[in-house]
Formats: sequence, C-alpha cells, structure tokens
Amino acid sequence: MPCQPECRGDGWLGVSGAAGRLSPRALGLWLGALPAGRFNNLTDVPGVTVGHVSLIRGQGPLVPGQGPVRTGVTAVVPHAGNMYRRPCRAAVYVFNGFGKSIGVPYIRETGLINAPILLTNTLSVNDVANGVIDYLLRQNGKIGNDARTPDIVVFECDDSYLNDIRGRHVKPWDAILALERAAAGPVAQGNAGAGVGMSCFQLKGGIGSASRLIPGKTGARFVLGMLVLANFGLQEDLLVNGVPVGRLLPAEASGSHVPGSLISVGVTDAPLSSRQLEKLAARTALGQARTGSLSRTGSGDFALLVSTAPLTECGSVSDWALDGYYQAIVEATAESIWNAIFLAETMVGRDGHLRKALPVGETLAIIRSWAGGLN
Amino acid sequence: MPCQPECRGDGWLGVSGAAGRLSPRALGLWLGALPAGRFNNLTDVPGVTVGHVSLIRGQGPLVPGQGPVRTGVTAVVPHAGNMYRRPCRAAVYVFNGFGKSIGVPYIRETGLINAPILLTNTLSVNDVANGVIDYLLRQNGKIGNDARTPDIVVFECDDSYLNDIRGRHVKPWDAILALERAAAGPVAQGNAGAGVGMSCFQLKGGIGSASRLIPGKTGARFVLGMLVLANFGLQEDLLVNGVPVGRLLPAEASGSHVPGSLISVGVTDAPLSSRQLEKLAARTALGQARTGSLSRTGSGDFALLVSTAPLTECGSVSDWALDGYYQAIVEATAESIWNAIFLAETMVGRDGHLRKALPVGETLAIIRSWAGGLN
Amino acid sequence: MPCQPECRGDGWLGVSGAAGRLSPRALGLWLGALPAGRFNNLTDVPGVTVGHVSLIRGQGPLVPGQGPVRTGVTAVVPHAGNMYRRPCRAAVYVFNGFGKSIGVPYIRETGLINAPILLTNTLSVNDVANGVIDYLLRQNGKIGNDARTPDIVVFECDDSYLNDIRGRHVKPWDAILALERAAAGPVAQGNAGAGVGMSCFQLKGGIGSASRLIPGKTGARFVLGMLVLANFGLQEDLLVNGVPVGRLLPAEASGSHVPGSLISVGVTDAPLSSRQLEKLAARTALGQARTGSLSRTGSGDFALLVSTAPLTECGSVSDWALDGYYQAIVEATAESIWNAIFLAETMVGRDGHLRKALPVGETLAIIRSWAGGLN
Amino acid sequence: MPCQPECRGDGWLGVSGAAGRLSPRALGLWLGALPAGRFNNLTDVPGVTVGHVSLIRGQGPLVPGQGPVRTGVTAVVPHAGNMYRRPCRAAVYVFNGFGKSIGVPYIRETGLINAPILLTNTLSVNDVANGVIDYLLRQNGKIGNDARTPDIVVFECDDSYLNDIRGRHVKPWDAILALERAAAGPVAQGNAGAGVGMSCFQLKGGIGSASRLIPGKTGARFVLGMLVLANFGLQEDLLVNGVPVGRLLPAEASGSHVPGSLISVGVTDAPLSSRQLEKLAARTALGQARTGSLSRTGSGDFALLVSTAPLTECGSVSDWALDGYYQAIVEATAESIWNAIFLAETMVGRDGHLRKALPVGETLAIIRSWAGGLN
Repeated sequence: MPCQPECRGDGWLGVSGAAGRLSPRALGLWLGALPAGRFNNLTDVPGVTVGHVSLIRGQGPLVPGQGPVRTGVTAVVPHAGNMYRRPCRAAVYVFNGFGKSIGVPYIRETGLINAPILLTNTLSVNDVANGVIDYLLRQNGKIGNDARTPDIVVFECDDSYLNDIRGRHVKPWDAILALERAAAGPVAQGNAGAGVGMSCFQLKGGIGSASRLIPGKTGARFVLGMLVLANFGLQEDLLVNGVPVGRLLPAEASGSHVPGSLISVGVTDAPLSSRQLEKLAARTALGQARTGSLSRTGSGDFALLVSTAPLTECGSVSDWALDGYYQAIVEATAESIWNAIFLAETMVGRDGHLRKALPVGETLAIIRSWAGGLN
Repeated sequence: MPCQPECRGDGWLGVSGAAGRLSPRALGLWLGALPAGRFNNLTDVPGVTVGHVSLIRGQGPLVPGQGPVRTGVTAVVPHAGNMYRRPCRAAVYVFNGFGKSIGVPYIRETGLINAPILLTNTLSVNDVANGVIDYLLRQNGKIGNDARTPDIVVFECDDSYLNDIRGRHVKPWDAILALERAAAGPVAQGNAGAGVGMSCFQLKGGIGSASRLIPGKTGARFVLGMLVLANFGLQEDLLVNGVPVGRLLPAEASGSHVPGSLISVGVTDAPLSSRQLEKLAARTALGQARTGSLSRTGSGDFALLVSTAPLTECGSVSDWALDGYYQAIVEATAESIWNAIFLAETMVGRDGHLRKALPVGETLAIIRSWAGGLN
Repeated sequence: MPCQPECRGDGWLGVSGAAGRLSPRALGLWLGALPAGRFNNLTDVPGVTVGHVSLIRGQGPLVPGQGPVRTGVTAVVPHAGNMYRRPCRAAVYVFNGFGKSIGVPYIRETGLINAPILLTNTLSVNDVANGVIDYLLRQNGKIGNDARTPDIVVFECDDSYLNDIRGRHVKPWDAILALERAAAGPVAQGNAGAGVGMSCFQLKGGIGSASRLIPGKTGARFVLGMLVLANFGLQEDLLVNGVPVGRLLPAEASGSHVPGSLISVGVTDAPLSSRQLEKLAARTALGQARTGSLSRTGSGDFALLVSTAPLTECGSVSDWALDGYYQAIVEATAESIWNAIFLAETMVGRDGHLRKALPVGETLAIIRSWAGGLN
Repeated sequence: MPCQPECRGDGWLGVSGAAGRLSPRALGLWLGALPAGRFNNLTDVPGVTVGHVSLIRGQGPLVPGQGPVRTGVTAVVPHAGNMYRRPCRAAVYVFNGFGKSIGVPYIRETGLINAPILLTNTLSVNDVANGVIDYLLRQNGKIGNDARTPDIVVFECDDSYLNDIRGRHVKPWDAILALERAAAGPVAQGNAGAGVGMSCFQLKGGIGSASRLIPGKTGARFVLGMLVLANFGLQEDLLVNGVPVGRLLPAEASGSHVPGSLISVGVTDAPLSSRQLEKLAARTALGQARTGSLSRTGSGDFALLVSTAPLTECGSVSDWALDGYYQAIVEATAESIWNAIFLAETMVGRDGHLRKALPVGETLAIIRSWAGGLN
C-alpha cells in the first residue's frame, strides 16, 4: 500500500530554523553588497511558490525497497497560473553535465519553460516526472489533442549515501503533493524536500535559498531569487568568505566521498530575454566558486533561470544593464549554498552513514582568527 | 489489470514485409554509392540487437486512458554485455531541440553511454525510463551503493494524431519486454515498436533502418548502422531522390499537421572517439535533408551515435579518414527515412484519424516521369 | 608600389552572364516552391549591397609573392547606414568548424553584428580585416575612445589550388574598395570577388546568390537573400535536383582534392531575433545537403544570418511562423550553390592547375535521362 | 618609418620584480593547497616558452597614430618544435564571448592547435596575426601548396584607456620579435608585453602567471601552468582571499570604467584529451570568480588549454583523475590574476589617464583586520 500523504513531512520536520540553527547572514557574515529581499528567499520574487515533501523513515541497515528513507521532492512554481498555457522565458546553463536531469534541450531550443520545476533524487526523476504529467494533464484537457505536450523539468542529485535510493521512495503523488503545498513566504532550508538526503562538502547539505534586489534606473526594483540543491564537494574544498574552513576544521566525514551535484534555480521578475537569462545562469558558476566548488568529476552542475515577466516584455533590458543581475546571482548563489550547510542538521542515514552538520561555532572561530594566511 | 506480455505485438504484426510492401532498394531506387550490410539494418553492426513492443488496441473515438492505442516501444542494445559496467563511446547532436528526450547532458559531458537506448511516445518517456531502471538495477546490484547511477536514455516522438497519448499505455514492463526481445537479424520497420503510431510527411511513418560498409585502409571494413523513428514533415516537403513527390502526389492528409520529430540512432564498430561520433551525428542532418526535411518548428531532431569498439581503442581513427563515415551516415539516414515511409502500412487511429501508406506505384511513376523540372 | 584600384577587376570581368552561362533557374530546373525576389539575389533584401574586387593576374608556375593571382574579396553590407552605430541582429551557426573565419564569438555572445561582412581567401583574412578597421575608424571617430571596438567579420575559403595564396595579394585597400563598390542590383556570380579562385565539386566554384519571398499573414512579404562562397566537395558528391550528376559526368578533375569550405551569408528584412536567426543559419546545412555536400573533413562550413529590421522590432515573429523562413533558406542555399557552379567559367591558375566549368549541356542531358535509378 | 626592434622593450622594462613589488605568495598570502612549480610560472611546463614585446612611448594628449603608446604583444609557444607540423591537443572555453579573439572555431572542431598563441590589444589582432603568418610561412614552405593552412590564434584585450589603440602600434614584426624572444625561465608579469596597457579592477593590471604540480598515481608529477592577461572588473569587485579589498580600499580610479576582458592560457604536460582540456578551460571561471570577477557585460573571457604530450598519448587519463587538475587550474588562475595586480606598477597613459598600482601595504592591512564581516 502506498504511503499516504499524511505520513510525509511538509519540509518543516527536522529542518533548520526549528532547531535553532542560524544562517550566515543572521550570524553576521559579509555576504555581498546588494540588499536581500524580504525573506532572503526565492519566494521574494512576486508569485513564486515553493513546496517540499520530505521523506524520512526507518533506520539501520539498508534493505533496498524498504529503507532507510532519507529523500524527498521540492517543487518550484514560477507563477500561480497555468504554466502550460502561460509559459515563461527560461534558460539552462550546464557547467558540468554529469547529471541525469531532464527537460534541458527543449528549454534551450525555445527559450521557454511550460511546466513547474521539480527537484528530487537521481533514480526518482521519472516518478516525479510522471507526477508532473498527471498534474498537467488534469489541469489541461487539451494536451495531446492539440499536438503539443509540456516539457517536464526535473533536476536531481544523488542522495544514496544516506538514502535507499534504489527503493525509489518518491512517488508521483509526492510530486503532486509538493506542487499542492507550494506556497509563498519563508522557504524551509537544509534537510527539506529534495534536500533531506543530500551532502555538501562531506557535511550535511540540502536546500538553500537567498535573494537580491536589483536597483533599476527609475527607482523600480527587480528581485532575483535563488534556490539550490547543494550536494557536492569534499570537506577540503569548503571556503566560507574566502577562508579555507574545510581544511581548518577537523575531518568530519565518516565515509568516502560521493560525487555529488549542484542544482541552481533562479527566478526574476525582470523582463530578461532567454539569451540574457542564459548569461545569468552561467554566472551561477562564479557564485558556486566562492564556496570552494571545483565542479569535480561526477558533479552535475545545472543552472536554470526563469523570468516571470510577460513574454511580450521580455528582452526590453539592455545587455549593458545586466551587471546588477550578475552581481545579484553571484552573491545569491553563494549565499544559498552557505545557507544549505549552515542550516542543515546532522542526519544519520542508511547503514548508519552519518553526515554531520557544519559545526558553526568552530567555523566562526576559524573565520575570526584567519588573516588570509598572513602572519 | 495491466496488459500481459502476450497481448503485446512483437513488432512483426501489421508490419512491412508481412504485407508485401517493398523497400526503395528492393524497388530499384538509387540510394547512394556505398554498399549496404547484409540486412541493410542497424543489426548489421556486430553485437547490436533491436527489440520492439507494438501496442495496437481498440478503435473509434478517443477515450483518454482507454484508447484507441497506437503506440509502442523500441529498444536498441549496442552490445550483449552489461551496458552499465561496459559503457560505449557516444555522442548526441541536437539539430532541433524541440523534443523531450532524456539522457542527453550526461552523454555530452562524458562522451559515454552506459544504458541501452529506448524509443517511445512523448508522454511515455518516464514509464519507459522506469522500466530501464528496473532492468539495470536487477542486473547491477551495485548501482546506488557505489555512488554511481546509470544515465537512462529514452528518445521520443509525438504519436498523438493516431494514439491515445494521454493514456500512457506503454508501461515499464513493455520497456523490459522490448529489451528482452532485442535480437540480431532483420529489423521490423514501419509500424513497429515506437513506430506504430508515427506519421511522416503526413503519411504513415515509423521505424526505418539501413546500413553501410566503410572501406578501411587495410581491407578491413567497418559497419555503420542507422535506425530512425520518423515522425516529421508536411507532405509537400517530401523528396524522393530529389523528386518533389510530396507535391506531385494528390494530397493524402486527412487531418491537420502535427509537428513531429526525427530520432536517429547510429551505431558503428569503428573505434571512433566521442568527438568524432559527434561529427557523424551532425551529418544525420545532411541525410534527413535529402528526404526534404525542413526541421520545422516543433520537430525534435536528435541524433545519437555509438561506437561498440573497446573504449581503449576509440580515437585511433584520424579525422582525415572520417569522410567515408560521413558518406555512410548521410546515405543511411536518408535511406532509413525512406524505408520507414515505404514500408509502413496505412493505419486508422483514434477518432478515425487516418494515415495512409505512401502510394508506391504512383510514387514510382512520378519519379520515372520527372526530369528535374526540365521540359 | 601597391596596385592601384583601377587595375583591380570589378567582379564583372570573366564572370557569369558575360560569357553567356545560364543559371539553373534560367535553364528551367525546379528549384523549390517559394517565389524568388526580383533579381533572385541577396540584394533583393531592401538596403543590402554587395561589392566585389577580383584579382586575376599572371599565369604559369607559382612564384610565391608574385603569382599567378586568382583571388579577391567580396563585401556584403547589410544597410547603407553606419554599421558600427546601428548594428543588426545576427547569428552564426558553425556546422563544420574547420575554418579560420573571424568574428564569430562576439556575434554569438551579443546576437549583434556591428561591421560589414567580408569574404576572401584564408591567408588574406587579416589584411581584409585591417581594411575594414581602417574603414570603420575613419567613419567613427569614437572607436577606441568610447571603450568599445567593432567586431570585424571576415569569412574565408582556401583558393590555393588556383591562387598564389602565400602571396597574400588581397590588401587592406582591396577590402575598402569592395566596400565602396557595394551596390544594389544584380550580384556578379561565379568567378567574382572572393569567388575568383574557388573550386566546388572539383569544378570551378565561387560566388552564388539567390532569394525567396516569404508570405506573411497580412499580405506583407519579407525577403530572405542568400550569398554563398562555394569551395567544397568532390565531383562524386555533386547532386543536382537529386540526380548524382557528379558520378554520371566523366571525371573532370585535373588535380587532387583540396579540402574546401562553404560560407553562407543570409540577410532578411523580417524582424527575427538572434535566437531565430540561429535556427535559420542551422538550416543552411539542409540546403547544402541538397547539392550533395557531405561537409567533409577540412571544410569550414559557417553560416551567418542577419536581420535588417530595427533592433526594437526584432523578436516579434513567433517561432511557429518560422517554417516559411526555413523553406526559404533551404531552397535559397541550395540554389545559391548551384548558381555558383552553373555560372562560374573555366579557369586556369597557378602551375597550370585547371578547374573546368560545369559542362551544362551534359548535365542537363543526365538530368533528363535519369529516373531515380529505376529501370 | 617603422620603429626598429631595438627600440622595443623586452618586457623587463618597468616591470614587477624590477621595482621591488612582491607577489602575493612572496607576501605570505594563502593561495591554495597544491604546490607550485619551480618558477610558479607557465614556463614550469617543460618546453613552454614566453616572449614579450612592450611598447611604451610618449606621453600627454592622445594623437591617434602617434601615441602615447602603452601596449605590446606576448607570445606563448607550447613547444620548441614546429607547431604547424607537430600540433598539440587543445580546447577553448568561452565563458563570456564579448571579445574579438581569433582562431577559436578551428580548435573547437579539431581539438588541435597548430600555431603559437599571441596576446595583444583589440585593434592589433590582425597585424599580430599577419606576423604569425609570416613566421609560419617562412618556417613551412608547404603551407598553401599542401592545401592546408595554419589556424592563427590571437587573443586580445582592450587597452584604450591608457593606449592610443587606434594607432595600432603593434606591427607584424613585433609579433615575430615576441616569438623570437620566447624563452624558458621566469615570466615578466604586470606591465609586460600585451599587459603594458591593461587595467584590472580599475587598477593597473596586465600579465600574471602561476603554476601547480599535480600528483599522479605512480609518483610522477605533471605540471599545469597558467598565464593570464587581466583587464577586467570594477574596483568594488576585487576580492583577495575572500576579503572585499576593492570595497575597503579608498576609490583609486581616476576615470570611468572600461569594459575589459580576461584571457587565460593554460598548458600542461599531462596527456589529456581535448575533451578533458575543455573541462579544465571551463574551470578557469571558478578561478577568476575567486578574485571577485562578475564577468561583466563587455568582458571577453576566453580560456585556452593546451597539452604538450604527444598526440598519441592524449586521452590516456581517466576523467575520474581530473579532480587534481581542476584544483590546479582554479588555484593557478586566481593566483595569476592576483599576480598581475600585485606586480603591475602605476602607469600614466594617453590624456594623462592614470592606473594606480594596487596599494599593497593597505591591502595587507585590510586583509589582516578583516574577520569575514564578523564583529
């Protein structure tokens, strides 16, 4: 019998704020020059909603198909309308293609996205995609009869270090539930939704989010919101604000390295063209670099950028006005990743595999005493 | 209750040869200068096997979920071994990205393919992918525990003009069945497997295949085999051997145009690098052009090329020796598409939608009387 | 002392019409369904001008630096205004990158072209570029002081089979002269400008041009004009209207194969975005395929597309309306290539190297008697 | 009369070490975990040589064609042999295509480079290219007669803020001179060669170089050397070791921002394939990010990677062994850029335009007192 929705976490269970963990911004770290939005979240972009389904069940030895389960699904919905009938300008930049995410070629060809964006684990991509298809077919009686079909977009990372990934515990109805839960307001970070089983820098990783306000010429301001699924890197790679924290902390990793990935989803209300959104997407690489990422072999580093502005307005921004967006996306991508590791809590997964939370106290002490390596 | 395997066609039902339809080669048309392989099929490449599951059920008005069903799945297996443990060099060229095929970014990044290749309809991609995952997980106990996962490759075309595509009648076990049926020898063409519900030039399309032998320096010969899923074009586009047959035939289409796609899969035993395979893949565009393709908006034209040579040998062919392969792929791609439309039979689908078979007699008469438009 | 302008041909010397050679259209061949523009030339696009400088000097053995000279330069000017101050939307598609053309990355990044387009031989690219820089600096006092510079666009083919290419006989002032000669009206084809020393299918090649009118919704019509520099292929590759003329003609080649290239330049007055222009540029591959091109190793096949519509209007055409443009560019590219070989005259070059003109009478006879290979 | 070679600086005039400026490594900054090579220079790769010609002449108001001249040319020669006859595996990654560098498409198509690499200012690209052609034609009598030509590679940045760029003072013989001067040993950095007139973070920029040793499995070690031409960014962007030095220093810029560029050239003796070299090239973006680069609009950020290993050995390294190279290129790219700004001296150029050297004392003080923004 399938698990009922009620036994599925809403993303707030075992998550960040709940446990009193603080974001680097709350701790006082310098995170760039541009102002953040109200919640410093992807949902600061008007109309954007996010929903999580977190699956945490069982403990002990791995029994494929039974657990332990440490996984989930996260839905990012660019606007409250019908995405299939009212698509958005979009672009994808694949900095490191070592991933199994789906939906990329269509976005590249058309510069459009006509479905919500889902994140999950590598082997659950197709179950989640089937959930999105169910959802869209129900919403759009014409699909298939009008000789058109939606382009389903599901991004993934590998959570097999903690999770029974072969069990494919994320089901189509979990994707639908994540879509139905999608809401405005603060986004649960760390061990939430698709982030439940993810590792980053051999510590606990997962979902992170941040936003920036971009000043316009006439006083109007646009918002750029980012949400990442952070699941990459060795501890020794980790930089916080340029400080090689990963090398200066005692080794925390209980197990061998698992090649991970980084999924970055950005949304803005600025009327950028898909060509311009692709430039922004490329610059997520500059943001991840600030956290020490080497984009190691095996890491699928995909960035998706979406504009919620009306299609007819997109393209009205000059390329020469993009620099503010570049600064925004670099800052917000880096902060999102740091948010993921600062907010995620320690988790024990299958076979007793352990991912410790970043030790925040030691981290801050290291940052305070570091002087660029100078004596 | 799911349909049992025995009620699923093996690809020979309602197909080509069975009905006495002849290929353009059998009819005497000139199809290029290079010799074809034994069967003039993808399976002429040693070790390559192909399996079809054809789903043809019901008639009359469309009742989504019930039918009529005119669809299927086709499996191309590059070698008889374990694809996950023994991957092949591969490359993808996306000439027109208006498609929802999956598995592309990983092949681009690594130059490798580590799963069999499946073809099906647009909305069944994920069910077929789940079947391939089932198949590979069963075969490879290590997947997920070794921190690696296969890259599932499923290509698709839209068969909604004839098929109840919203019903998603292709199930994971159909993909597995197609893999289990995969065999050497002649490939069923036309209304077989994924080709059952496809249209091409507003006529009946589907699966086509062809092969070419490429002379080497030392007398040794390599084989290039092609298999296409042909589902694109308006009748007015159709060229056969340069003759605008589509314009000279009476209009056959009973319904409006459905934007289609062309999937081209090529395999060779030559030890080409992935860089070289990408060049071959690009040249499928030159082959499809000979059939009159304009790669219209809405057509997802994806080409995948695979070498079955050992990984360690790949890259030993000079770029200056590629011209023979270019000629082979251009000829074999064009012939595969013509094979699809010459061999496919008339089919009635949902809501009485009709796709007539190419009228071969009239076609030959037109070719005979055409003189390049000269008086 | 540099050669004075007056000793440089204007492109009408030894060219096409002058010698009574006829285009395939004039000969009655079927060249597609869309209507051609007034001159069936690139210059049918309002405001577009073309200028040639043809350098033909000396005969006999090659003395590098002295000759014999069989080369030239061709200028394509999208509009009569200042290209640097009023750039156009543009896109490049590199189907086969085996070339040394310059200016590509900037167009890809910005979707704009801010300089005229020049064609010449491979080793003269930089002299021609310097001529364009001279021209633009003179025209634009601000360049360099405003922290911006133009992106110089020079495309090239290798004419070394007939020409003393090491002598680099095209000088900066030849580029300027070609720009100054640029005019509306019929374009000299065959042995004109950059086409003087080019070979195609081991016959005499060079410049070819054609155009198509694209019907719009409201009765308005846009024009697509193409100009090619055709310098590729073996005789055995040549198809005319699907007929393997190259194989059916007696072997004409006096010398070994020289890997060539194909440069395709298209201009339209339709307000297409650079994303859309890139799709058109890709489809020049479908046009060249109709002439039998295999895009052999060593062939640099570059396509540039430009829209002359105001920047602010570009992007107002739906992707779903592109099919007419696709048909136009496929037809016009193929016809341009055939024009180049039908109109070019026999030429003797360095060391007595000979490129014969296509024997038109035999070609037409072959086309008339061919019946697709059928008995 | 052209300037004679003897009046052209050798790159040691007005450069780095000469003036007692120290590199960040000499100053004690932490620059990553991998060991540097002997000179911490590109020339640590066996066989690689670098040559500069620095042109510094005149002062006062700009008189186009006369000066003041603040420019130059730098040659990077991968091996001492004949590059045309013995090409190297190579790859280019264009992170931001807003540049006018030449030679990119051929490298992409073939995965090879068959000419030395030159760097200069934007408007002198073609004169430098002509110098390289002169050099290669003299060295290779067969070019042009063998139906092949070299792919000339010249990268550029815009030095017009200090230099009379319209005067195009770099001549073909300067390129030849730089090639002839190319030598092993320490590389002049800062205001050397092509770096003479460049700005970075609105401070004085120019040439920087660094290297890393990569541990192999069997004790053998490969070297990765980097050389950058650093000419990008606003002062406010500058990060040193994560510290926002640019924002914490007083504003140094005397003039408005000039959109610049970053050219990164890497060479290794490891037998990497061109596919692998492209992955390394991409990761220069992760290195430049550590210096605060946003890759602003107008910045042409091109990375070229070359392997000097024999062609037949290239490709023998597993992708899973690339992580060490990734770490090396990220560290060496960042250090090269910091080297450029730490070593370049203050320069006054045309119209009294001033680019101050990075104030090293203040910079170190800022780094010492910074604690990640924490109280």
